[in-house]
Amino acid sequence: MNGKKLNIGLFGFGTVGRGLYDVLQRIGNKNVEIKRICVRDITKQRSVQADFTDKADDIFNDPGINFIVELIDDADAAYTIVKRALQSGLPVVSGNKKMLAYHIEELIGLQAKHNVALLYDASACGSIPVIRNLEEYYDNDLLTSVKGILNGSSNFILSKIFNEKMSYADALKLAQDLGFAESNPTLDIDGWDSLFKLIIITVHAFGLYVAPEEIFTYGISNMNDDDIRFANEKERRFKLVAHVEKIAGNRLIMCVMPQLISRNKYIYSVEDEFNGVVIKGLFYDKQFMFGRGAGGYPTGSAVLSDITACLYDYRYEYKKRNDSQLPEFTNDHLFRVYYRYTDNEDLALVPFESISEKYSSESYKYVVGRVSLGALHNIQEELRRRNVFIAAYPND
Amino acid sequence: MNGKKLNIGLFGFGTVGRGLYDVLQRIGNKNVEIKRICVRDITKQRSVQADFTDKADDIFNDPGINFIVELIDDADAAYTIVKRALQSGLPVVSGNKKMLAYHIEELIGLQAKHNVALLYDASACGSIPVIRNLEEYYDNDLLTSVKGILNGSSNFILSKIFNEKMSYADALKLAQDLGFAESNPTLDIDGWDSLFKLIIITVHAFGLYVAPEEIFTYGISNMNDDDIRFANEKERRFKLVAHVEKIAGNRLIMCVMPQLISRNKYIYSVEDEFNGVVIKGLFYDKQFMFGRGAGGYPTGSAVLSDITACLYDYRYEYKKRNDSQLPEFTNDHLFRVYYRYTDNEDLALVPFESISEKYSSESYKYVVGRVSLGALHNIQEELRRRNVFIAAYPND
Repeated sequence: MNGKKLNIGLFGFGTVGRGLYDVLQRIGNKNVEIKRICVRDITKQRSVQADFTDKADDIFNDPGINFIVELIDDADAAYTIVKRALQSGLPVVSGNKKMLAYHIEELIGLQAKHNVALLYDASACGSIPVIRNLEEYYDNDLLTSVKGILNGSSNFILSKIFNEKMSYADALKLAQDLGFAESNPTLDIDGWDSLFKLIIITVHAFGLYVAPEEIFTYGISNMNDDDIRFANEKERRFKLVAHVEKIAGNRLIMCVMPQLISRNKYIYSVEDEFNGVVIKGLFYDKQFMFGRGAGGYPTGSAVLSDITACLYDYRYEYKKRNDSQLPEFTNDHLFRVYYRYTDNEDLALVPFESISEKYSSESYKYVVGRVSLGALHNIQEELRRRNVFIAAYPND
Repeated sequence: MNGKKLNIGLFGFGTVGRGLYDVLQRIGNKNVEIKRICVRDITKQRSVQADFTDKADDIFNDPGINFIVELIDDADAAYTIVKRALQSGLPVVSGNKKMLAYHIEELIGLQAKHNVALLYDASACGSIPVIRNLEEYYDNDLLTSVKGILNGSSNFILSKIFNEKMSYADALKLAQDLGFAESNPTLDIDGWDSLFKLIIITVHAFGLYVAPEEIFTYGISNMNDDDIRFANEKERRFKLVAHVEKIAGNRLIMCVMPQLISRNKYIYSVEDEFNGVVIKGLFYDKQFMFGRGAGGYPTGSAVLSDITACLYDYRYEYKKRNDSQLPEFTNDHLFRVYYRYTDNEDLALVPFESISEKYSSESYKYVVGRVSLGALHNIQEELRRRNVFIAAYPND
């Protein structure tokens, strides 16, 4: 521990920032202190006695601050803060997955150049130490896939719908009231939050960075009662699954989409705001990690784990990025999907390779068939805009 | 990575040693090579072409060997090897939980004194990185309990009994044939293997070492058909659970015993040779880690993860052992238990604080009541010897 003391300049005092503050108050680690907190709105009434400011300079110019924690919503502002910290030689813990998903390559370079820690385990899966495990434990050659429920609020909504027959709108409202949902709910519901986490996870799992716009991403906001009935009839549940998998030829597929999950799968039982990740490997078969992926205290305590890791000079080593045989990203892979559509134009939109099931009534039409990820990626905006719904329907 | 190359002297070529060998052959890590293998019986026919010896000196005196991997059954011999390696300044990976459970304090001292790595993640829970997570991620102040199924073969047997109505003897035989059971099955069945792992886990989770003889340990070998029927009637299953928990007053209880687990618990669904660990904390509620805890390949690949961690100079830091407020071990804690007995003398053996349920027929008698861990610990040999069976029966 070398008698180090971290004097933190904290950016952001939302759910997670406040969670970190409370956790620290409660456990009283004498080597970690929040010295000053930079917030957007300095006039807002707050229930804690702390040194607030609305100027980043007040933190960066304070020679007593030797550590930055960034927990704000705004990805652009977060990028500026993290970059400035690294360039100033200040270690940073960040919780902003969107910012990381876009800038992680540059930031990895900066932390190496300035020889300073950048940690962000709390950014993916809240309290589950997924990143650190992928980084430290799973040998690249052995890993074949990572599949998981990475977004607590969409999973909360799906749980309420499937277990308690709640309406979509009520479930969303409840998730927001309980602090699980991001301030912009489409981030959760349309899969973007899961996508950002998947990108970060993939960097640590397979060494490869893939930009958000390359990856098919589709959420649950189009799901309707017919879809839910279909799932129930098949004794499955829709889960919003983020998925990265090594396929033949050292290639990697990635996607975020609803999947019809059967009862015998571990992620079937991941309920409410919990997250669950299944890691598969050549030799150890599957591993499952499960925990709270959202909420102020769980995420706050994950941020604290990142902070205390810095007391011990922990850094991600990005071992797998140095691999000479990095896999190649591809969308050239077929998925079996369930597709609910309204009219023939909708059906023509999806270039199925084959169709194995077709149902049609006046009010409800669907097909089950195989289609490539690339094709889905090309039409993902249309799939969101139209009155249709698509979900992976694994053959198991 | 510093261009390091590990030339391994391997002790033991049983299930795990062979698993490690095969995994390494398959993935071909050019920085890790098994240079020589020390086995007990050099005359035994083996299907691999490797440099075998039966003399430890052939390994320790080989200046080309810079790394020791110890994967033998015999705890005393393992102790000698690991100690000699550390004293020679050679990093060691060990898989021998029994040896660690007895000697971990001395070995922690030796690895510090000689400034050399001693890793043993594979020793507890095979492929699940429990130790490293407890060590690296979970802040001591936040952790409240670790509870898990740590022994694959007893769990395999329980699964076969509860799911496939297999007899105890057939299930044990099958576990041994499949390579899950230790060569001495009482280690698995009577809870000792779980106990050794629990002790190692507790060192990393709470910083405290407690000797095996201090801890109530009781297995499943006395379980009979009446007990199984009782569990089924209550819609529960017996699971052999290792349990460490912080209770009021900064005290720590530890035990290994069968527990009647209800359907809504995560460990209820841990089947076959899988292991599952539930980690509970003040702020993040619960986390669950699940994976293969036994078998040559899963454990072999876990050993490989320990080995490659050494390529990156990883060492356990034993952070929590330096805590000024180490918890104190106690057996002064009441458990609700189910106790099946034969005669009044058996009933008098257990000093119940209270009894809430009593059943008696000619062929089957049981009580449900509360008894202290300390009292159980005092009579654990008797509980094994007599025709009785006891299991925790949590009130949930």
